[in-house]
Amino acid sequence: MAYIKVDEGIPGIRSLALFRPETGKHLYALVQVLLRGDSPLTEAERELIAAYVSSLNECMFCKYSHAATAEFLFKDQKKIVNIVFHDFRKAPISDKMKSLLHIAGKVQRSGKQVTSGDIAEARKYGAVDRDIHDTVLIAATFCMLNRYVDGLDSLTPTDPVEYEAMGKRLGENGYVMPKTS
Amino acid sequence: MAYIKVDEGIPGIRSLALFRPETGKHLYALVQVLLRGDSPLTEAERELIAAYVSSLNECMFCKYSHAATAEFLFKDQKKIVNIVFHDFRKAPISDKMKSLLHIAGKVQRSGKQVTSGDIAEARKYGAVDRDIHDTVLIAATFCMLNRYVDGLDSLTPTDPVEYEAMGKRLGENGYVMPKTS
Repeated sequence: MAYIKVDEGIPGIRSLALFRPETGKHLYALVQVLLRGDSPLTEAERELIAAYVSSLNECMFCKYSHAATAEFLFKDQKKIVNIVFHDFRKAPISDKMKSLLHIAGKVQRSGKQVTSGDIAEARKYGAVDRDIHDTVLIAATFCMLNRYVDGLDSLTPTDPVEYEAMGKRLGENGYVMPKTS
Repeated sequence: MAYIKVDEGIPGIRSLALFRPETGKHLYALVQVLLRGDSPLTEAERELIAAYVSSLNECMFCKYSHAATAEFLFKDQKKIVNIVFHDFRKAPISDKMKSLLHIAGKVQRSGKQVTSGDIAEARKYGAVDRDIHDTVLIAATFCMLNRYVDGLDSLTPTDPVEYEAMGKRLGENGYVMPKTS
């Protein structure tokens, strides 16, 4: 049971957005533009960054929901997401994506860990300003969402089938502020 | 110089919001409702949580700008903010605020560190659901903003006079998305 009185049947961030729609609507709008708006990164790549940072923060709700969404969007026959969780250097992704996941992992620990060398490495593999900007802001945003979801102990489903359905819904429809019933 | 091409004369989050207004406007809207909207916590108390979490993350821009804003709003003759930075348990603030800063400090490390005991302690001192919710979301939001500002190495002024002016402006006008020139 969550630490505050939220609708007990609703998992994760949705229950918190409904508890306080005035902040929830801006969180949904931010995530929608960040993960679905214009970017040099594909939607699948951005979901992968979100899932990776959430896995580092051990936020099970965000990790599994964004992993499922990335899998849905990648049509992930190569099991990219699972390999990234274990060692992104071995995943069948571009060198640019590896250099960006490296930056995302540093942001997860602290923004101050990112060095000019990390940025130069990403640029060497073709990253432009917007790749770098979006990577840092996605990583930072999930450091927020992970803490919000876990800091209030919101409902975390344990059935993989639920995450699969979530991944399909988020992959197809994006981030839509839930309606009060 | 920041890691991406932003207006070099503009400090911190403002330069990043102008680089990507589509995300910037949602960040400003979120912070405005969180720190200035309806809450059982005063604006000064919420700025204090923001400054405290930013100090733990060693994000100098956010620490000093929100410290200045909290000082402005507290009319801080007791140097509350400085005492909180050193040891919040010794600050002339309510037991409720101390219990909430304790929770904010845990969220800064990880949402998973917050325990039902921490929540019970805050409730014992009069905290209601919205106090707890707002504390966790403010702490989480500054874990995002600190990483965004430092992860892209945006301009951090070193002159205390600049922060004093910022504190007065943010205390009087709140968070208004900057205009492109």
